[in-house]
Amino acid sequence: MIKANDPILKSWVEVPSNSDFPIQNLPFGIFKTQYLSPGAGVAIGNQILDLVYLNSKGFFKSLNLPDGIFNQGTLNSFIALGKEKTRAVRERISELLQHDNSELRDNKIAREMALISMEEAEMLMPVKVGDYTDFYSSEQHAYNVGCLFRDPENALLPNWKHIPVGYHGRASSIVVSGSNIHRPKGQLKPADAEIPVFGSSKLMDFELEMAFVIGKSTELGESITTEEAEDHIFGVCIFNDWSARDIQGWEYVPLGPFLGKNFGSSISPWIVTLDAIKPFKIAGTSQVPKVLPYLEFDGDRNYDIDLEVYIRPEGGESTKVSHSNFKYMYWNMCQQLAHHTVNGCNINVGDMMASGTISGPKPHEYGSMLELSWKGTKAIKMDDGSERKFLQDGDEVIMNGYGVKNGIRIGFGEVTGKILPSK
Amino acid sequence: MIKANDPILKSWVEVPSNSDFPIQNLPFGIFKTQYLSPGAGVAIGNQILDLVYLNSKGFFKSLNLPDGIFNQGTLNSFIALGKEKTRAVRERISELLQHDNSELRDNKIAREMALISMEEAEMLMPVKVGDYTDFYSSEQHAYNVGCLFRDPENALLPNWKHIPVGYHGRASSIVVSGSNIHRPKGQLKPADAEIPVFGSSKLMDFELEMAFVIGKSTELGESITTEEAEDHIFGVCIFNDWSARDIQGWEYVPLGPFLGKNFGSSISPWIVTLDAIKPFKIAGTSQVPKVLPYLEFDGDRNYDIDLEVYIRPEGGESTKVSHSNFKYMYWNMCQQLAHHTVNGCNINVGDMMASGTISGPKPHEYGSMLELSWKGTKAIKMDDGSERKFLQDGDEVIMNGYGVKNGIRIGFGEVTGKILPSK
Repeated sequence: MIKANDPILKSWVEVPSNSDFPIQNLPFGIFKTQYLSPGAGVAIGNQILDLVYLNSKGFFKSLNLPDGIFNQGTLNSFIALGKEKTRAVRERISELLQHDNSELRDNKIAREMALISMEEAEMLMPVKVGDYTDFYSSEQHAYNVGCLFRDPENALLPNWKHIPVGYHGRASSIVVSGSNIHRPKGQLKPADAEIPVFGSSKLMDFELEMAFVIGKSTELGESITTEEAEDHIFGVCIFNDWSARDIQGWEYVPLGPFLGKNFGSSISPWIVTLDAIKPFKIAGTSQVPKVLPYLEFDGDRNYDIDLEVYIRPEGGESTKVSHSNFKYMYWNMCQQLAHHTVNGCNINVGDMMASGTISGPKPHEYGSMLELSWKGTKAIKMDDGSERKFLQDGDEVIMNGYGVKNGIRIGFGEVTGKILPSK
Repeated sequence: MIKANDPILKSWVEVPSNSDFPIQNLPFGIFKTQYLSPGAGVAIGNQILDLVYLNSKGFFKSLNLPDGIFNQGTLNSFIALGKEKTRAVRERISELLQHDNSELRDNKIAREMALISMEEAEMLMPVKVGDYTDFYSSEQHAYNVGCLFRDPENALLPNWKHIPVGYHGRASSIVVSGSNIHRPKGQLKPADAEIPVFGSSKLMDFELEMAFVIGKSTELGESITTEEAEDHIFGVCIFNDWSARDIQGWEYVPLGPFLGKNFGSSISPWIVTLDAIKPFKIAGTSQVPKVLPYLEFDGDRNYDIDLEVYIRPEGGESTKVSHSNFKYMYWNMCQQLAHHTVNGCNINVGDMMASGTISGPKPHEYGSMLELSWKGTKAIKMDDGSERKFLQDGDEVIMNGYGVKNGIRIGFGEVTGKILPSK
């Protein structure tokens, strides 16, 4: 049992009942305010605990942290301290926030300096992403795409149940929640045309994904086993892999998606530790055919975490368009990481690895407009009476995620992003 | 005319007649020695000009460079100064090295401190690569691969002459010349097997490529025109995109190459500026069908640069196995960069973009073992009497490149790497 996860814990900080951030969560992020330059913080209720301030006042003295470890524009150096240290920091923060701990609670000045209203803060990219990999690990999604673009009889390609298929994405264009995305321009080839035309994508889509952040580096030539994998994962966030289906469709054979994806990906700003989501571990689906030995694993490695997608038209109210779950992964994170490194590929702290679109078996659990509108053949009804097949300019996409157990809700906050017209 | 390129220039530093590094080249790199920590240097003959030392002694005073600009582990900050500044530095170095310039020549102590024998130095990665993209821009290579894996009648896919096809690669595993590469392990599916097996790659290959280094960043949402592209390119190096053909073959449909490539890529350590290779500009092949307007360009944008590949078996002598040329690119670097950013994808200083395998029309001009051995159906004879279809453990692959004009040879040095047995 991780002490900081104990459902009995209560904080002296007020935490609204539906909050994503009770004392059992304590995710890490980077924020700034009108007065404070970028630094590390932890979410608690509707507030941010300023770790830069707490460290400067000696609240982490017993942990012997390096000087200025929180006073940086990213969490990379903090994460690189290793899981033993970052776990101790989370445990110490839990201790400081517990309702019967007076250290911070009864120090009026320190308390007021250390707690910052989320409304007054701007969240920034939590990590500097070195390399970004996107997997394709939800069976329903791979099946749906196979049906839509190939043949329902052979929807899954021959390698899909042997390999956690993945590909490299663009790290530079990963942005934090709240960033707007211009509708990309590019080459489109209408089905009835001989040659491509140039224009704005007409088939703008989101992809509902989770991503994990690497917490421990390896050297070139080293591999990570499924057993070791969790030690290399710091935490997770929600990931919206924006996609321009028409650009993607024309470009992706034979070397994979490129400009159809790399104009932007959006993440939720709080990195929820693997420790914090431990209560939601469940078994995945059984894997048949049997996987190769390096992909075998013990224990429950999937997570029961609900995932929701809303679309808010310009000036309107949001409509829920998808309700999926992280548990619908055929390949789990440990298998993904073991596969990624089995050839000796090195990984670095801050690298991000996304799940691929997470679709459940029911139509309302599909994780992209491509699937929800079945390639534009079905309209998705919005609460304002309008319809969508793909995203329109002005549409804001809002994703969130949460697990609930023993009355405790561990959430991820939101990742939002709005489609602006092409530049 | 760029002054530093003038073929009439001679240096007071001795430059052997076949050197890659006459005074007209002056490429930038990062080196260290037993006594010096990593810093920037410039190649001249068989020596390295120590820019850290020269700057500390005021030789660049007139240029107002930021403190410590050369005293870093990568060239990124230097490159980020912009082309006007980096060009002025190259011109100043040229001036200092000219035979009739006494400033450094006649300052015995400074001269001895500033010039370091290449034999005493270790070259390091010249840049921190943020994102790495690999294109697929040689027509002969794309045609060969199409013949080998598909059908000679339809060797080029429908998008190939419309799009400079590219995909994202792994930045973390790009290593500098001299790094050894362990033969990767992974999933292989023998043609006659139903399911894959796990093992060491049997089809190890090199790919002869050039890569360019981004010299000027853009913001997300911005695009670069073909006319602006050269201003965003700092320089070029030779790039060996190691490939495990059996791993690649089983994994790459539908999302592209992944573990078949990301176990390592090797680069030559000197970044040769775009200015230095300007004399080798030539016209590319005519592009039919006509490209979309954003891919149109003016002037000569290809480069006549010879490229050679040698294989040196363990303990033996090297055999030349390929002699290609950078001119055999269908899509030039300006088109590649315009395409990469047409959707608003942002680029950063230090990003690396490789050409894809460069194969010429004649069989000895093919840039990979896959093509040279025609998928293992032809043996390549080595000078020691042995044969190769793919690379063996202990084989060292050596690539070099050079242009010659007006009696001046502008070279890239070598990129070498040896295949070690699987770990």
